[in-house]
Amino acid sequence: MGLPDFSQRFLPEIETQIIKVIESAKIDQDESLYQMLGYHLGWFGTGAGERAQGKRIRPLITLLVAETVGGDYQDALPAAAAVEILHNFSLIHDDIEDQSDKRRGRETLWKIHGIPIALNAGDAMFSLAFIAFNLPGNRHSSDINFQASSLLAATCLALTKGQHMDISFETQTKVSTDDYLAMIKGKTAALLAASMQLGALLGGAPIDTQQAFYQVGINIGLAFQVYDDIIGIWGDSDFTGKSAATDLITRKKTLPILYGLEQNGEFSRMWQSDITTKNAPLLAEQLMNEGALRYAKKIAGEYTSSARNQLAKLSPLNSAGEALAELISTLIQRDS
Amino acid sequence: MGLPDFSQRFLPEIETQIIKVIESAKIDQDESLYQMLGYHLGWFGTGAGERAQGKRIRPLITLLVAETVGGDYQDALPAAAAVEILHNFSLIHDDIEDQSDKRRGRETLWKIHGIPIALNAGDAMFSLAFIAFNLPGNRHSSDINFQASSLLAATCLALTKGQHMDISFETQTKVSTDDYLAMIKGKTAALLAASMQLGALLGGAPIDTQQAFYQVGINIGLAFQVYDDIIGIWGDSDFTGKSAATDLITRKKTLPILYGLEQNGEFSRMWQSDITTKNAPLLAEQLMNEGALRYAKKIAGEYTSSARNQLAKLSPLNSAGEALAELISTLIQRDS
Repeated sequence: MGLPDFSQRFLPEIETQIIKVIESAKIDQDESLYQMLGYHLGWFGTGAGERAQGKRIRPLITLLVAETVGGDYQDALPAAAAVEILHNFSLIHDDIEDQSDKRRGRETLWKIHGIPIALNAGDAMFSLAFIAFNLPGNRHSSDINFQASSLLAATCLALTKGQHMDISFETQTKVSTDDYLAMIKGKTAALLAASMQLGALLGGAPIDTQQAFYQVGINIGLAFQVYDDIIGIWGDSDFTGKSAATDLITRKKTLPILYGLEQNGEFSRMWQSDITTKNAPLLAEQLMNEGALRYAKKIAGEYTSSARNQLAKLSPLNSAGEALAELISTLIQRDS
Repeated sequence: MGLPDFSQRFLPEIETQIIKVIESAKIDQDESLYQMLGYHLGWFGTGAGERAQGKRIRPLITLLVAETVGGDYQDALPAAAAVEILHNFSLIHDDIEDQSDKRRGRETLWKIHGIPIALNAGDAMFSLAFIAFNLPGNRHSSDINFQASSLLAATCLALTKGQHMDISFETQTKVSTDDYLAMIKGKTAALLAASMQLGALLGGAPIDTQQAFYQVGINIGLAFQVYDDIIGIWGDSDFTGKSAATDLITRKKTLPILYGLEQNGEFSRMWQSDITTKNAPLLAEQLMNEGALRYAKKIAGEYTSSARNQLAKLSPLNSAGEALAELISTLIQRDS
């Protein structure tokens, strides 16, 4: 079985599990909160459907890891639902914090309903991530369930710390590349790492295997984000729909840009002035000339290698493990 | 030992426990997130001190219940911290949702720092409520800890459902008194009930005793809120600092007002026009004439009696139980 087979088998079960959890948001006859969460998850409303749902990469990873360590993916379904719900909680609040009007091509929740009730819907989503470990049919011991929900809590805290740093960077004049890497470790990598570790935990793996998967997730998360940063400046518009230089125009302090600022050269000087769609390509070129693309690719490559080496140590991989490696490659294939 | 003795003994330990949890919000050398949470909790910044901290009623209840059921209050400290932290998470987000500038006489977090980073600080506070069960020195089994954190998750969900209803009421033309009671059961009573049940759980009480305390908490929470609604219209400015008729001017749909609207009489007609500080006392008087005060007092009295009867069944009370009954009376004494 390859990745497409696993996806085809797992994705409907992931969706069913998420629905079961989100149904707890119904208030007697009143389904309005449930409908809001279901809209955000891509089930209801204008534009509902596969594209609106996103790729469900994190829960897929959780189930694949559970099978990779020799467990049964069904045992990992509570965690699969939990990580996807937690991810979506963070998206609802991020959209408010960033004042984003659109998410996956559709209007954001706060844009439709206003900040107060959308913020609260995000809080409900947050609560439901924990509720995921409390559904009837959960076959785990309290010991495992408590470990799982503790890991989830630690991940939430890491996410919020990362987000705190990210928002703080906007108004800070000096942000180092090290600060940035610490930020994305919390904001992006922690949840991917938890998605891996939870799969290993609920799949019955011992603690050292769990931690190895956690580290794989951290490295993949970091590599993924840095490649995303590269695309945000030098483009790959087929893949993400982002046009080149977007992050320059929005003045987002991503890794290549912070590297460029650290060089204190021509790019750093150009950054002080207004950046428009017109001069952005010039800045992107200057940034490349000052070595920022080479630097970012090197960093991302190192994280990628670390993740691949860590995963290789867990070999020989079964078919789920091979599919997991394939899924990971799709996340970080952009180093080619 | 009376309530003041218990308070004097417990309050410093509650504060120490909360600090231990909140310290997890430090990011290496960066204490800015920790400082934000500490400001909200009344420890740091302009106006810091006892008044800014609030009364810590919920954690006090948790510890008193633990002792009432014959347990050791120290075993309940993780839950005491959890309920107070969860309460404060909800305040941070409520202040954003209600656009409140002041909280306990001080500027609110979002007013000082802006919505994005304050919203995220609320999320960090939310995460920390769960972290409270994961500190070193926790002496409970995973079984107890998982039950406790599951109850906390269910409480979060109840809170967000209550808040969803409350915000929805603002734009709904027809809200019944039953809708309202369902709303405050989630928004106000659920956390008081959980504060009680968690004390019983960590104090070692069997499930039926835990559930009895949960019910006491629900009834006290409902009674407390309805008395608060009475004060919001007919005043008791010494107690809350609210001037009379506040809730009329802000058009808050509280129980007495919804009762008045259900009567479909003169008050209901007056409600359609503008309400100012000038005509508000007239509306308050009309509302009283239509029986709303009598109705609200009856409802609150019923919840109070239920709570007292349930508590009496758990007798003979030890000194902690007597202090708990005393604390409860201060919350609902306003029926005199």
